[in-house]
Amino acid sequence: MASSPYDFTVYRGTFIQLSRNPPAGQKPVLLRNTGALWVSAADGRIADFDWQAIDDNAFRQLMEKQGWVDVDSQVNGHSAQQTKVKIVTASDDLNEFFFPGFIDTHIHAPQYPNAGLFGSSTLLDWLETYTFPVESGFGSQSDHKNGKFSPRDAPLLAQRVYDQVVARTLSHGTTCASYFATVHVPATNALAALCYTRGQRAFIGRVCMDNPDFCPTYYKDLSAADSLSATKSTIEYIHTLDPKGSLIKPIVTPRFVPTCSRPALEDLGKLAASYSPPLHIQTHISENKNEVALVKELFPECASYAAVYDEYKLLTPRTILAHAVHLTQDERALVRQRDAKISHCPASNSALGSGIAPVRAYIDEGVTVGLGTDVSGGYSPSILEAARQACLASRLLGHTADFQAETCTNSHPKSEGREKLSIEESLYLATRGGAAVVDMADDIGGFEQGMIWDTQLIQLGGVKEADRSPLDSALESSRGTGQSLVQPGPIGNVDLFGKETWEERIQKWVWNGDDRDVKSVWVGGKLVHSRG
Amino acid sequence: MASSPYDFTVYRGTFIQLSRNPPAGQKPVLLRNTGALWVSAADGRIADFDWQAIDDNAFRQLMEKQGWVDVDSQVNGHSAQQTKVKIVTASDDLNEFFFPGFIDTHIHAPQYPNAGLFGSSTLLDWLETYTFPVESGFGSQSDHKNGKFSPRDAPLLAQRVYDQVVARTLSHGTTCASYFATVHVPATNALAALCYTRGQRAFIGRVCMDNPDFCPTYYKDLSAADSLSATKSTIEYIHTLDPKGSLIKPIVTPRFVPTCSRPALEDLGKLAASYSPPLHIQTHISENKNEVALVKELFPECASYAAVYDEYKLLTPRTILAHAVHLTQDERALVRQRDAKISHCPASNSALGSGIAPVRAYIDEGVTVGLGTDVSGGYSPSILEAARQACLASRLLGHTADFQAETCTNSHPKSEGREKLSIEESLYLATRGGAAVVDMADDIGGFEQGMIWDTQLIQLGGVKEADRSPLDSALESSRGTGQSLVQPGPIGNVDLFGKETWEERIQKWVWNGDDRDVKSVWVGGKLVHSRG
Repeated sequence: MASSPYDFTVYRGTFIQLSRNPPAGQKPVLLRNTGALWVSAADGRIADFDWQAIDDNAFRQLMEKQGWVDVDSQVNGHSAQQTKVKIVTASDDLNEFFFPGFIDTHIHAPQYPNAGLFGSSTLLDWLETYTFPVESGFGSQSDHKNGKFSPRDAPLLAQRVYDQVVARTLSHGTTCASYFATVHVPATNALAALCYTRGQRAFIGRVCMDNPDFCPTYYKDLSAADSLSATKSTIEYIHTLDPKGSLIKPIVTPRFVPTCSRPALEDLGKLAASYSPPLHIQTHISENKNEVALVKELFPECASYAAVYDEYKLLTPRTILAHAVHLTQDERALVRQRDAKISHCPASNSALGSGIAPVRAYIDEGVTVGLGTDVSGGYSPSILEAARQACLASRLLGHTADFQAETCTNSHPKSEGREKLSIEESLYLATRGGAAVVDMADDIGGFEQGMIWDTQLIQLGGVKEADRSPLDSALESSRGTGQSLVQPGPIGNVDLFGKETWEERIQKWVWNGDDRDVKSVWVGGKLVHSRG
Repeated sequence: MASSPYDFTVYRGTFIQLSRNPPAGQKPVLLRNTGALWVSAADGRIADFDWQAIDDNAFRQLMEKQGWVDVDSQVNGHSAQQTKVKIVTASDDLNEFFFPGFIDTHIHAPQYPNAGLFGSSTLLDWLETYTFPVESGFGSQSDHKNGKFSPRDAPLLAQRVYDQVVARTLSHGTTCASYFATVHVPATNALAALCYTRGQRAFIGRVCMDNPDFCPTYYKDLSAADSLSATKSTIEYIHTLDPKGSLIKPIVTPRFVPTCSRPALEDLGKLAASYSPPLHIQTHISENKNEVALVKELFPECASYAAVYDEYKLLTPRTILAHAVHLTQDERALVRQRDAKISHCPASNSALGSGIAPVRAYIDEGVTVGLGTDVSGGYSPSILEAARQACLASRLLGHTADFQAETCTNSHPKSEGREKLSIEESLYLATRGGAAVVDMADDIGGFEQGMIWDTQLIQLGGVKEADRSPLDSALESSRGTGQSLVQPGPIGNVDLFGKETWEERIQKWVWNGDDRDVKSVWVGGKLVHSRG
């Protein structure tokens, strides 16, 4: 890596994050600090911060005290002893603030061309109609048997789609994603290479699916042995690409129980456990009631869906279980006991009519939960959209038959609305929760000293001033010309009128913000996206 | 009105709309035509179209046959006999198409500063905490008693908010809106004036709320007589502003049953009926179960919530009932019998946890339904977002206890998913349905000859081409600079890869489109918004 022309990047302005590990039974809160925070160019981690440096004068004192010199200043003749810093300032006038990057704990990169295409399907027919056909185009089933491993062996379309997925998710502030790819080794490796090149933190999973009874003949692993050897190929590629795993890591990815044979599940569980630390694992669980019934039929010897994964050592503290809409009480206890993590994908669960996961109950029970877009069961690559949908779905949860059956007993006649996720909770899931789901809670998701600078700079735009009646100005400039008077500057749909508290500005961002509000994105201290 | 420098505007390209009045039991379909359609400058209505003029050659023939001359062409010396036309072309390469303007059948303009602010509240506490305080700032309770009627008597903040609401909704393609204002006459008149100035078709309702038992002392009509006289003031103002009602119409607006006394309800029903044709009416109904219980308590003499409105002659073919989440079978029959219309507000109903309206059942029963944003119970001013939320909510409907209790009887063990709204149905509600709700089904919502040109030009953007591996280009241009390679041109989040059918492009628009895709908007043939 080329050495940096400066030692630290100093970020000035407003920093907003979620409180870490709220005490049991308490909800997370938004924390806001203003001042300066600096990130070491050497390791991309937060070196320190100073919440006293709230104005230019205090900041000058900080510069002097630290012996810093601004590399962009016009002063000549820095002394060699001085520490060079790059300064990045968030504008108060434009309502800019630094916020932890979003973590997408469940996204299917090859399905991105299908984003928004699902008709009125539900999980099992959706897989057959939409998903398997698009995924099958990312290579040949026997790629790795034919000695094809290189990203450049992937079809150009696959490379192009993956490139766009990474670019799009970065532009929405996703600094870390746990990706499902396809069964194809070259394309999976291409996804890893593109994440590495663009600088997005990623877990890359080659999808395992070998059960001929459930996988289509045109798109599957050729055997259980094939599931294992192809998975190993991709792990090897990633370990060569990023030997320290500082950005890209492999993740063992049995698609879900119905697509995997017993030998494949067994091999994959052993494979993950054979590493130290054990490899990450991701799969799906209990998304849809028909799927749950199918698993019961396929694995009659196991007590539950979760028990199948547990039987094959796939239910670990580094396992991400996507969906978990319809877990039984026993399964919830088992997931908690194994410390497996849950990726909540509300946009997908609503879009495919899967149901509403009782997220608040999971959190209260001590299960770790993050958010996933689940592209393209989910239609949007945005975790902000996932946060919105998590709030919305939770507000409908109390109307569902399952929830009422479970909670409205004689002893608990009413849930009293505790199931509703607040903005703070949704943003917690999108950052701190996601960090814990990918087992990086000490590294990302917040602004503690020593954490990695995976951050987005959000810009809501200025407050709209009007010092004269729009009855005058509208008449002059608008009528007949069709020129819009909507003047959001370079920004999007968040309209501020000036009376909003800072917490209310965050709420407005969550409900009406989009990628236009994401001005810059850093991963590991490196700038990886800036709005053009 | 200044006379136009041309006789017709000729629109060329692709036109997409929903089929009109699908036969009973059948769902609407998307219709696509390419060619030319022309709108008379004299009345803003569609004069005719030619779906044969699909290329430049055929279009030239059409020009000749019609004796048209392009006002923008460089040819000198048009003869006086020739018909001058202005040509507007939708680009195929950029996936542009004309689509009927959206109709927002329920929006509270003064609540716009609260868009996104609702916490975890539900209807009745939300009104007290968020809504009444913001609405009360739009004037003084005794404005019209003090002889204040002029829009310029409204507070500057009120004018500014209203101006932004109109601009924002236009920028999202809303060509027609049915607005709730506040109790204040000057501000309500200002909303009418601003809609007129900006050229948005609008129904303007001064809100009536005189029941001291439910309205806050600081924000209410002073009496039932006051409800009536203030309403009359605004009607008079609007009839002066737009005597023919070609753009702006008044709408009688009792807020909802709990805020209105019996005398006020009676007066307002009579007032609406005293006009020929009768005035439009809008109100709320059965949004929330606590509200339904409250109405039962307040009006024990009436059989139901709907029966209260019926009792006071407020349930008419020109009545818009917002929400209708929890109607009983008897109420549904009564609404159908009176031919009253329903404004479905799914974003709001999810956000406030009100529940899910069984829209498909209403439609099957023959009730007319349109979409509303319900800003700021709804967080978004976009009807496209309302269409999305209508789809999403309908996919969760089958999980609700109420739906299961009603439909999963022995004779109908399963709903078989009929309750799910398709993209086509949601877009139908957003255009044709909304047109019928505001009693303008013959005038707006589609492209039939004689209809008014209330239209948006949608631009999805071009298909992204990649003729070389992004593994090369990403490396060159992106790494280290932070410059994004996401290149949506001037457009938003809709990514096309080239294999999508035209129907799939529409689906992608609905699920990931936003105001960036709205290139131009016309109302009554006039350009009222164009993206800067």
